[in-house]
Amino acid sequence: MKYNIAVIPGDGIGPEVVRETILVLEKIGELYRHKFNFTEALAGGCAIDACGEPLPEKTLKVCKSSDAVLLGAVGGEKWDSLPGNKRPEQALLGLRKSLGLYANLRPAILFEQLKDACPLKSEIIGDGLDICVVRELTGGIYFGEKGQKNTNFGKSGYDVEIYSEEEVRRIAKDAFEIAMKRDKKVTSVDKANILESSRLWRRVVKEVAVDYPEVTLNHMYVDNAAMQLIRNPKQFDVIVTTNMFGDILSDEASMITGSIGMLPSASLGGNIGMYEPVHGSAPDIAGKDLANPIATILSAAMMLRYSFDLEKEAYSIEKAVKKVLDQNYRTRDIASEGAEVIGTKEMGRLIREAL
Amino acid sequence: MKYNIAVIPGDGIGPEVVRETILVLEKIGELYRHKFNFTEALAGGCAIDACGEPLPEKTLKVCKSSDAVLLGAVGGEKWDSLPGNKRPEQALLGLRKSLGLYANLRPAILFEQLKDACPLKSEIIGDGLDICVVRELTGGIYFGEKGQKNTNFGKSGYDVEIYSEEEVRRIAKDAFEIAMKRDKKVTSVDKANILESSRLWRRVVKEVAVDYPEVTLNHMYVDNAAMQLIRNPKQFDVIVTTNMFGDILSDEASMITGSIGMLPSASLGGNIGMYEPVHGSAPDIAGKDLANPIATILSAAMMLRYSFDLEKEAYSIEKAVKKVLDQNYRTRDIASEGAEVIGTKEMGRLIREAL
Ligand SMILES: CC(C)[C@H](C(=O)O)[C@@H](O)C(=O)O
Ligand SMILES: CC(C)[C@H](C(=O)O)[C@@H](O)C(=O)O
Repeated sequence: MKYNIAVIPGDGIGPEVVRETILVLEKIGELYRHKFNFTEALAGGCAIDACGEPLPEKTLKVCKSSDAVLLGAVGGEKWDSLPGNKRPEQALLGLRKSLGLYANLRPAILFEQLKDACPLKSEIIGDGLDICVVRELTGGIYFGEKGQKNTNFGKSGYDVEIYSEEEVRRIAKDAFEIAMKRDKKVTSVDKANILESSRLWRRVVKEVAVDYPEVTLNHMYVDNAAMQLIRNPKQFDVIVTTNMFGDILSDEASMITGSIGMLPSASLGGNIGMYEPVHGSAPDIAGKDLANPIATILSAAMMLRYSFDLEKEAYSIEKAVKKVLDQNYRTRDIASEGAEVIGTKEMGRLIREAL
Repeated sequence: MKYNIAVIPGDGIGPEVVRETILVLEKIGELYRHKFNFTEALAGGCAIDACGEPLPEKTLKVCKSSDAVLLGAVGGEKWDSLPGNKRPEQALLGLRKSLGLYANLRPAILFEQLKDACPLKSEIIGDGLDICVVRELTGGIYFGEKGQKNTNFGKSGYDVEIYSEEEVRRIAKDAFEIAMKRDKKVTSVDKANILESSRLWRRVVKEVAVDYPEVTLNHMYVDNAAMQLIRNPKQFDVIVTTNMFGDILSDEASMITGSIGMLPSASLGGNIGMYEPVHGSAPDIAGKDLANPIATILSAAMMLRYSFDLEKEAYSIEKAVKKVLDQNYRTRDIASEGAEVIGTKEMGRLIREAL
């Protein structure tokens, strides 16, 4: 089979982690006889520098005519003082909205081999962690009306959090479907004691739950969820929540695994999925062969699984990553005592070798 | 001096922890020759049961004619299915708004004696934790316009996050003033890469900072803050943020201390301050003499300090609490191996004895 992949290396360490990932995919292509076509496109800070806008029309076109998008990372201090709609992050928002990527899947997994890097005590972590955060990605306060106006208290800035039944229904369904393939437990996070949008959210999630009698559903307020992730993260299987709460909780969940340089993500919804590491562009270590390419390589595995239905190939990448970790090779960010510390390229090479 | 204190025992464990706290204050009165007058009033679930509304007019009157308010806890599953504006939580929102309590101070402290209860590894915690979260409490999405409407996607629920320059300025000033008495570091948390209200927030905080050249200010996105609290909580001194982000982050910060049954809070702004424990009403252990009264007792200490300017008296309560902990007495929630586990009343008695 032939697959067209749009590649957005982006800023900071983006290009170098994407480079290793492409090489991994090419190796998979050889081994399993698939043809991957890569088309590079600009987005984020580098696109601002080159074309004056974070998400050029041409990039969007490339993405829309591909089967999936692989993204490195966008953003950096360099562009932080630009006005809101001119920032690198707009590229992400634009891609999410234009491609209809309403479901953001963020697995928070503790890698056995990195147990020591986990910030939580071992009593809490026990034999590991495996949470899947399902974040709504094209609605809520990110995309609601926003602006400035004058009120009794003077000049004000505002943003509208808004969710429709339909928006909640489709993300809730996805969460339940995912739970069916896992431990059959969904925790829906909202702030229904305060927010009208959350009350609608909760009601619709309950309605959807009726079709999934095997799945246990519970509801949790976002403040409590932020605590429970620390107190007892093992209670969670699938967490489904809004765009804003998901932004916060998925980052918190990533951090408690202690494996943040390792975590991939998938954004789904339309015909074209987008795959990117959870970590950012880390401009301070860019171009130094220090970055950990594993999160991006595992994002490619998710691409094989979710966009191309190549489960065997996806699994073989995941297995290769574990093998290299078992051999005690580490990039600097995940290094512990006694480990062999290696660079970005060497990590990529070893993973390909392990395939 | 004579001080009038409105007392709202509330629901669940509220009444029993408040009872011990009143006895502590009376002991302080004896020792330091102050007269504390206590006037009880209903709010929360018990007020719904008794008067059909969470915050009766009479309660508000009692509070408004007092010098300070001491609150136990409100809420419980029993009232969870009531419509939004009839829930126990409305009592809190009503009190905050009517008394103009725009500044919520939530110290997140790791008690030396409870180090073992901390969920984070000891390398991360080092010699302790002492963060003060300053949460805006009468603005933002909690009090913005909210409702339901029909959109292209069908029936929708919405809530408006809105901040005026004036609202941001006053809470920012408070945060800087507090930082001046501490380690002179303020971290302002927002989501300025997405939200218009956050961009206004960040701009105004920067303006206020000009008047506090000794204080180091940094800005952090809320998703990053949720991670940094786990990765490296010791970087924080004062965190200032919005109502919604503060709700989430202050709970997260409480939890990482492992001392949540110990943490007090103060809500300030107008002439009358309100003081309450950070923990909830815990209906499952209500009336069983199991609850930890320390958070409420320490809230009373904050009352003495902030509302009555009785620093010596406040400090003596805090010292008494530490002494009892040093003697290895613990309520069940904070019990560790080798500790003497005692009930609510006995904990109150020992603290009074230690005064
Ligand atoms: C960069 C930013 C706009 C983005 C978000 O808030 O969605 C990021 O934090 C993420 O989680 O992908
Ligand atoms: C009970 C609830 C309305 C309240 C809030 O969200 O403010 C609580 O979580 C708090 O932090 O005091």
